[in-house]
Amino acid sequence: MAKAIPSRAEDYSEWYNELIKKAELAENSAVRGCMVIKPYGFSIWEKMQRALDDMFKETGHSNAYFPLFIPKSYLSKEASHVEGFAKECAVVTHYRLKNAEDGSGVIVDPEAKLEEELIVRPTSETVIWSTYKNWIQSYRDLPLLINQWANVVRWEMRTRIFLRTAEFLWQEGHTAHATAQEAQDETRQMLDVYATFAEEWMALPVIRGTKTANERFAGADDTLCIEAMMQDGKALQAGTSHFLGQNFAKAFDVQFLNKQNTHEYVWGTSWGVSTRLMGALIMAHSDDDGLVLPPKLAPIQVVIVPIYRTDEQLEAISAKVKPLMQELRKAGISVKYDDSDANKPGWKFAEYELRGVPVRLAMGARDLENGTVEIARRDLKTKETVPFDGLTAHIQALLANIQQTIYQKALAFREANTFRVDTFDEFKAQIEKGGFILAHWDGTSETEEAIKEQTKATIRCIPLDAPDEDGVCIFSGKPSQKRVVFARAY
Amino acid sequence: MAKAIPSRAEDYSEWYNELIKKAELAENSAVRGCMVIKPYGFSIWEKMQRALDDMFKETGHSNAYFPLFIPKSYLSKEASHVEGFAKECAVVTHYRLKNAEDGSGVIVDPEAKLEEELIVRPTSETVIWSTYKNWIQSYRDLPLLINQWANVVRWEMRTRIFLRTAEFLWQEGHTAHATAQEAQDETRQMLDVYATFAEEWMALPVIRGTKTANERFAGADDTLCIEAMMQDGKALQAGTSHFLGQNFAKAFDVQFLNKQNTHEYVWGTSWGVSTRLMGALIMAHSDDDGLVLPPKLAPIQVVIVPIYRTDEQLEAISAKVKPLMQELRKAGISVKYDDSDANKPGWKFAEYELRGVPVRLAMGARDLENGTVEIARRDLKTKETVPFDGLTAHIQALLANIQQTIYQKALAFREANTFRVDTFDEFKAQIEKGGFILAHWDGTSETEEAIKEQTKATIRCIPLDAPDEDGVCIFSGKPSQKRVVFARAY
Repeated sequence: MAKAIPSRAEDYSEWYNELIKKAELAENSAVRGCMVIKPYGFSIWEKMQRALDDMFKETGHSNAYFPLFIPKSYLSKEASHVEGFAKECAVVTHYRLKNAEDGSGVIVDPEAKLEEELIVRPTSETVIWSTYKNWIQSYRDLPLLINQWANVVRWEMRTRIFLRTAEFLWQEGHTAHATAQEAQDETRQMLDVYATFAEEWMALPVIRGTKTANERFAGADDTLCIEAMMQDGKALQAGTSHFLGQNFAKAFDVQFLNKQNTHEYVWGTSWGVSTRLMGALIMAHSDDDGLVLPPKLAPIQVVIVPIYRTDEQLEAISAKVKPLMQELRKAGISVKYDDSDANKPGWKFAEYELRGVPVRLAMGARDLENGTVEIARRDLKTKETVPFDGLTAHIQALLANIQQTIYQKALAFREANTFRVDTFDEFKAQIEKGGFILAHWDGTSETEEAIKEQTKATIRCIPLDAPDEDGVCIFSGKPSQKRVVFARAY
Repeated sequence: MAKAIPSRAEDYSEWYNELIKKAELAENSAVRGCMVIKPYGFSIWEKMQRALDDMFKETGHSNAYFPLFIPKSYLSKEASHVEGFAKECAVVTHYRLKNAEDGSGVIVDPEAKLEEELIVRPTSETVIWSTYKNWIQSYRDLPLLINQWANVVRWEMRTRIFLRTAEFLWQEGHTAHATAQEAQDETRQMLDVYATFAEEWMALPVIRGTKTANERFAGADDTLCIEAMMQDGKALQAGTSHFLGQNFAKAFDVQFLNKQNTHEYVWGTSWGVSTRLMGALIMAHSDDDGLVLPPKLAPIQVVIVPIYRTDEQLEAISAKVKPLMQELRKAGISVKYDDSDANKPGWKFAEYELRGVPVRLAMGARDLENGTVEIARRDLKTKETVPFDGLTAHIQALLANIQQTIYQKALAFREANTFRVDTFDEFKAQIEKGGFILAHWDGTSETEEAIKEQTKATIRCIPLDAPDEDGVCIFSGKPSQKRVVFARAY
């Protein structure tokens, strides 16, 4: 096949790159680190957006839109925030081009220099909290529950399509509350929204946890995250939800009059997921033949391929297929009938496998006679011949089953690749083989950094549901009450 | 009322600004020319997006996403294009900040200078056609029908919220075709999509026409537009659709192998509408009491306000209202029940008028006894008392009627303010009074510019349906076969 991709075993990284290319999901653009998301890839992202947006609205949030540009002075107002983002900012310094006097082309007009440089937002806490200052006066203005869908730019030195790009698409929620408790509840609620989305839509099991101080968002008091395992055993952070304390309220002087009639700083949260989820989706489920998409996020859920020799056969098949398609669509199933004569059935089979279409129906002359159709499922690659009557109900059940099966497979994979380790020697041996390691840690940044330096493994999170367990730190031997999750990560 | 806005007659411009502020649609940000779209305003924009996006998909288009940044050299590849946009570009020159050595704060790191400056996209023809070069080889790859929803930046010197902002949100369609005819048909089709959206969703009558060479998009062979009349008699360009000829294909060397097996340059179109439509929506229909929203774009279509003195009365009213709300929602009607005790009914009435909620129901103790409810419509400010039974059907019909009535009112206003003028003296007198002027023009840029200079009126368009009519140019006296539309414009 012209479209074959390397196997995961051969070269996992190349498998990922080639899969994205061949399935026409995205590509690198001529602009360093910026990607083009192609129509097929974008249609998956749109489905993710729609599902997430519905969940945000169900939990009381509204969308809004804030400026792309952040004045340099704003970014600097929260000390650890600027520390975290200054190293990777795209900076706008001028607002006009002009023709060079020597006729050599168009140049930046030196007379059009901005008084204050503008940063292309790497995240919007600063510009949003500077706005909230005007929106919040009293406890009656709280909570403020806002989200925006936007592009952001972080000038990363090493980029990887979907996983780490200079420009990416995301949503960022920014909420303001009257009490610390309410903000903490919001932080946790949105983490749960992300986890539910990952598990129920992406079929991606995730661990909910807290980041260590080292891995915290720049400007947060606490960062919660969901962590998923990819098929090479590496971890991928799939979403974060931050309790900002009063840090941004203090930086931008956002106070409110509480019910006791005294002024208090507002409590904040922020939370986001990005097109990185596309990378997670691809890496978690796909195989050597191409994408495997959970039905809930598949742009095409069912493809129908006619198998015919003569025009009469095609006509007879099409006559059967057209009403079936109407019925499937009425049941909310997206379906494509590929009767183009440009390609042979075998080519089509491979193409839709590559694109991860969950269910394929093939119908030939004998099926017509027998009143049957051949159904192939993408995930398990099994085939069955089923009666044409009652097909819609059969396919609905099949799609639900595929969604579940993909999730269960990913969960089983994670469980098979999660290890409880009690010595640093074991740890070093296991980390080379991949997977998640549950180990005791003494709670210090020094130990965390030493382990990272020696093994390239980081603490992905302290799981929220980690049971209390007495133990000793694998590195320092100091006492510990909980196991944390270590892994190498994307 | 604390929230009163100036009347249109008093100060049309201030009326617009205050209305946007008081109805909480948007506000200026601290970043020059960039706006914050507030949740209520954004929810209207979301409804516009959804309706347009559905129409784009119905006509065979897919969404994708292209980079925010355009290398300076790309922008320069199409000569008239760079000419049109160079004067108002935000330019990224650096990719890092650092701490100043004198401790004065954060500065741009001079060592992090980009080799080639990047332009924040003012429109994406260049970056998209540079990508299409790799996507298009043969006639089989055509047509390519792609749209993107994105933010763009044009460093305008004089900005006006929604109407002209440095950053704005829009969609830009970019299509590629095998023949000039096909591209021209697409250009026209998308103009018709915009006109249908404006008329059926925004209740905004529009004139479909062709721009003169002077007003054409920088890089297009032909620009079609829809033009609407605002309540001050000025014109507002509400959408454009460009036939790009082979200009961008030539600039980026995009050729395809045609069916005759020879190489040909691809034919292109682009088309867009933006958050400017929000300005059009506000200016076309609203009145001195606030917004008037066509029901199809109203975030809240029906608001219910209880009128009560005692808790028992409120409970009895609520018991009637809850099942009604369920029924309305089931019928696809968005409804809000405002039973908050923080504000009196009179305040609520004014507030929802300001926000343009099309239908208001008020229900008091006497209504309970009589099995009735008071219905007020926002557009005509009429009230009626109707039986509670059959209310959902009544409201459905009412919403449809309001949508129609708002459209008809705007159409009647435009017709009453459109004038056929045959001499330049008449022209000069009429243009001061506002409105559209249908007049003969000799077809030259010189005449067009002279008229603009003397009257500030521009040719809004040459209507597609303008009848052939022999006449003489109002300015030059030269022969003309068609009347064109002149107006002062936003």
